[in-house]
Amino acid sequence: MGVVVNLDGSPKPEQSLEGLLKLVDADMVRVNQMIMDKMQSKVDMIPKLAGHLIHSGGKRLRPMMTIAAAKMCGYEGGSQVDMAVAVEFLHTATLLHDDVVDESDLRRGRKTARLLWGNQASVLVGDYLLGQSIKMMVDVGSLNALGIFSAAAATIAKGEVMQLLASQNTATTEDEYLAVIDAKTAALFAAAAELGGAICDRPESERAALRSYGKNLGIAFQLVDDALDYSGDPEKLGKSVGDDFREGKMTLPVVLSYRRGNDKERKFWHKALEEGNVSDADLKHAVELILSHNAIKDTGERAKHYGAIARDALAIFPDSQEKSALLEAIDFCVERVY
Amino acid sequence: MGVVVNLDGSPKPEQSLEGLLKLVDADMVRVNQMIMDKMQSKVDMIPKLAGHLIHSGGKRLRPMMTIAAAKMCGYEGGSQVDMAVAVEFLHTATLLHDDVVDESDLRRGRKTARLLWGNQASVLVGDYLLGQSIKMMVDVGSLNALGIFSAAAATIAKGEVMQLLASQNTATTEDEYLAVIDAKTAALFAAAAELGGAICDRPESERAALRSYGKNLGIAFQLVDDALDYSGDPEKLGKSVGDDFREGKMTLPVVLSYRRGNDKERKFWHKALEEGNVSDADLKHAVELILSHNAIKDTGERAKHYGAIARDALAIFPDSQEKSALLEAIDFCVERVY
Repeated sequence: MGVVVNLDGSPKPEQSLEGLLKLVDADMVRVNQMIMDKMQSKVDMIPKLAGHLIHSGGKRLRPMMTIAAAKMCGYEGGSQVDMAVAVEFLHTATLLHDDVVDESDLRRGRKTARLLWGNQASVLVGDYLLGQSIKMMVDVGSLNALGIFSAAAATIAKGEVMQLLASQNTATTEDEYLAVIDAKTAALFAAAAELGGAICDRPESERAALRSYGKNLGIAFQLVDDALDYSGDPEKLGKSVGDDFREGKMTLPVVLSYRRGNDKERKFWHKALEEGNVSDADLKHAVELILSHNAIKDTGERAKHYGAIARDALAIFPDSQEKSALLEAIDFCVERVY
Repeated sequence: MGVVVNLDGSPKPEQSLEGLLKLVDADMVRVNQMIMDKMQSKVDMIPKLAGHLIHSGGKRLRPMMTIAAAKMCGYEGGSQVDMAVAVEFLHTATLLHDDVVDESDLRRGRKTARLLWGNQASVLVGDYLLGQSIKMMVDVGSLNALGIFSAAAATIAKGEVMQLLASQNTATTEDEYLAVIDAKTAALFAAAAELGGAICDRPESERAALRSYGKNLGIAFQLVDDALDYSGDPEKLGKSVGDDFREGKMTLPVVLSYRRGNDKERKFWHKALEEGNVSDADLKHAVELILSHNAIKDTGERAKHYGAIARDALAIFPDSQEKSALLEAIDFCVERVY
């Protein structure tokens, strides 16, 4: 288990994901096996490039959601594994493309695929994984599940475009930021959870609950991620602090600090985010401003709100190990910030 | 001033709206005069029926937003008054239609128009006010402002339909409930605030900030309204406690209590909300359940979250009396619950 689910750089899984990890352990072994199989290709570049990212120690949070949700809904077939792999492939495809768009050099503590093999190969292997994931979902044979999955794929792409447009725009409001992360992150969490209910034809009320759980968990997850980019331990993050800052990304800590700042501070943000080319001293100053405006703490508070909604969404399901594990995942996602 | 802005049943305005009331006082005198003028018609029924509701002591919160936002943006023309009247007419139109749809007998402590003059007259006078409001906005002569207003009118109608579909459906999730109040309530608050910026051609960044302020304030307002329906002082509410319960409305206190409840409790909610015909004892039990699950308190917590977003949205504007007044309105809306 440790191989695939460890948090990057940390010697063992975080305490609060233990329940989920244990629950999905057997299925995740199958997921990882299928990932290996499905990314094989005679085109050498594909497994090489995809494998580099896929084996870089991601948390596999999204496929675990699918497995746990299917279990919670009493699913007894085997398609949860295929769907979980499709979810992870779709996620991996977006990461490959993200790194090209953001010109990132580091992800999960390793050089990015685009740095090692170039932007073109990264874009195309991302496309390959996307195509593969759709094919796998078609093979699962549930039009319901396919509908959920393909809608999420379109929404994520829309979210990435929205993020591109909002980038370097200091006028971005919290609502606009939320719309971006709702599309680019929360949509896949929502789909990952809902697929578990859809595959065993659970009623719409339960599917809506899973969707709502996933969506709000995804928002909380991304909020905390964005806070960690300014406050996290680089060791644990697997990337440098301040990447978002260097890329001019308008994440919530910056949105709040910009709006709460005085004219002088806003000039600094304009210059840093819109003109780019920032120094280490700029980053240090940005972190100071963010802290002075309580923007990390308040980003965490906002995350708690979405975590609370996710928790209430799941409340209609009877108590079970699976439900407890999914609830623990909320605490894990929300509490990473502190 | 006291005549139009008093909270129903309370001898004087709530402390925390004082700043806003004072600021918009002179303009609101003109707003009230124009309301009187514009609802006149040779068709006797129109001023009689419209006047009944319009003079029943609503807070005029939405038109005050328009006036205050225009002032904050430095507007020096006179159209803020016309726009404020249009906003209040649109609001009044939706109330008239709401009372027909909900078969309500009481609003703001008085018999509803539909009870006094019938459903048909209420629907048609609502339509008249809607038409009148659009005409007034056309006369203002700003395509920008007209676009904002007409979009809000369409969104509100969509929200009412969504609410109708969600009604008596205990499976409603918090997300679905939020989508309803976002459309039926928050859209008009958002438009009311944005109009103030649009009329003086402020840049999109400021319009977006006003929109975000209004939207999140509107969500907070509706959340607290829905909490008060189970916990408020009937004297101050101007309506009985439990109206939403009797109408089978899935507001957040019920959404949370239903989801957090056990099977026996859920059966109670099913029976009460889906079958209707509830007794006073049922209402008492509903309130007990809501309190036992902290659903009033947590609805208030959720409202605080949206209030915080509204506050940060407005932070880009320089400090001013107007800004302080708009910020006080957030506290007023959020703190009514306690």
